[in-house]
Amino acid sequence: MAAWSERLAGVRGVLLDISGVLHDSGEGGGVPIPGSVEALARLKRSQLKVRFCTNESQKSRGDLVGLLRHMGFDISEGEVTAPAPATCLILKERGLRPHLLIHDGIRSEFAQIDTSNPNCVVIADAGESFSYQNMNKAFQVLMELDNPVLISLGKGRYYKETSGLMLDVGAYTKALEYACGIKAEVVGKPAPGYFQSALQEMGVESHEAQ
Amino acid sequence: MAAWSERLAGVRGVLLDISGVLHDSGEGGGVPIPGSVEALARLKRSQLKVRFCTNESQKSRGDLVGLLRHMGFDISEGEVTAPAPATCLILKERGLRPHLLIHDGIRSEFAQIDTSNPNCVVIADAGESFSYQNMNKAFQVLMELDNPVLISLGKGRYYKETSGLMLDVGAYTKALEYACGIKAEVVGKPAPGYFQSALQEMGVESHEAQ
Repeated sequence: MAAWSERLAGVRGVLLDISGVLHDSGEGGGVPIPGSVEALARLKRSQLKVRFCTNESQKSRGDLVGLLRHMGFDISEGEVTAPAPATCLILKERGLRPHLLIHDGIRSEFAQIDTSNPNCVVIADAGESFSYQNMNKAFQVLMELDNPVLISLGKGRYYKETSGLMLDVGAYTKALEYACGIKAEVVGKPAPGYFQSALQEMGVESHEAQ
Repeated sequence: MAAWSERLAGVRGVLLDISGVLHDSGEGGGVPIPGSVEALARLKRSQLKVRFCTNESQKSRGDLVGLLRHMGFDISEGEVTAPAPATCLILKERGLRPHLLIHDGIRSEFAQIDTSNPNCVVIADAGESFSYQNMNKAFQVLMELDNPVLISLGKGRYYKETSGLMLDVGAYTKALEYACGIKAEVVGKPAPGYFQSALQEMGVESHEAQ
């Protein structure tokens, strides 16, 4: 294996995931992964640019960063690429008014969005809010549209919490896709455009990042 | 269009769906579809054998038949092919002990089934019982199995109730399939084996039925 200095030749920036990389989420915000606070501090002291790219869609960026700072991580809101703000840009650009199937913890990110008379559905990791009633309401909204648009914040199958594996938004997106006979647009990893926007915000080209 | 007598030449039996054919389900058991009580009565007076083949998985056969009789339909429990009893046969044959993700209305059909230490998941149209917590529990059971078996009672996308369209079991089965990376076994229409067993119970060959 090549030395780190060799492997990092030409690399100007590092894009870090958050959940499962910095911490394991869970009750009370979860726990830091051993060594990750120190690793991030070292990266920040280096010449490399650092940015965070997450699919977190249960918490607002503010709440997420607050939790991580409390655990000792050197992180600020402006350094985080998250799917909810990216979705808000898309909604505004395309004149879309969403019905929101989301967790209450992220509702504040959509405060400036017109949700009257919806012409699309936005689905995020709603957790306990994935009730039958809420899923059925989103389904009915889609079925009433001539051109049903479903925007999914990520397409994860599941994630790990301190208490065990948890179903992620991707599973529920598949349910709506199947019921409505449509294909969702994914905002979040692994959509290439999402990584690109994170790189742009970091100010490096894709061949310069790791 | 050929006359009915011509079209029915060689036909010895008729397999009828229930929901959407005899009645529209909904609050208080739903409402009969106009003309269907009389049409069934005429069929029963004819030379044709009649059997019912449903994907109903929220109610036990007894409860379903009770509702339909109350609406005026000439129907008895023994004339109904339903996915829950068919599933029980499969579970017994293969020594499977299910974790049940089902509606309370159908739990009695599984009364004779060993559900201790589950080695498979059975999913039916659980309606309001499709909570995040219940879905996640079924997901966790599957993820803990070396050879995860998921049996789905039908794979309908949605059905119509008097109050509107409702998400059906197929959507939730897709969610679990995606999350676990597996394929469910379907007991119910449109699985050919399910139609075959209904025909067998009616005592006619597939080319003799309509």
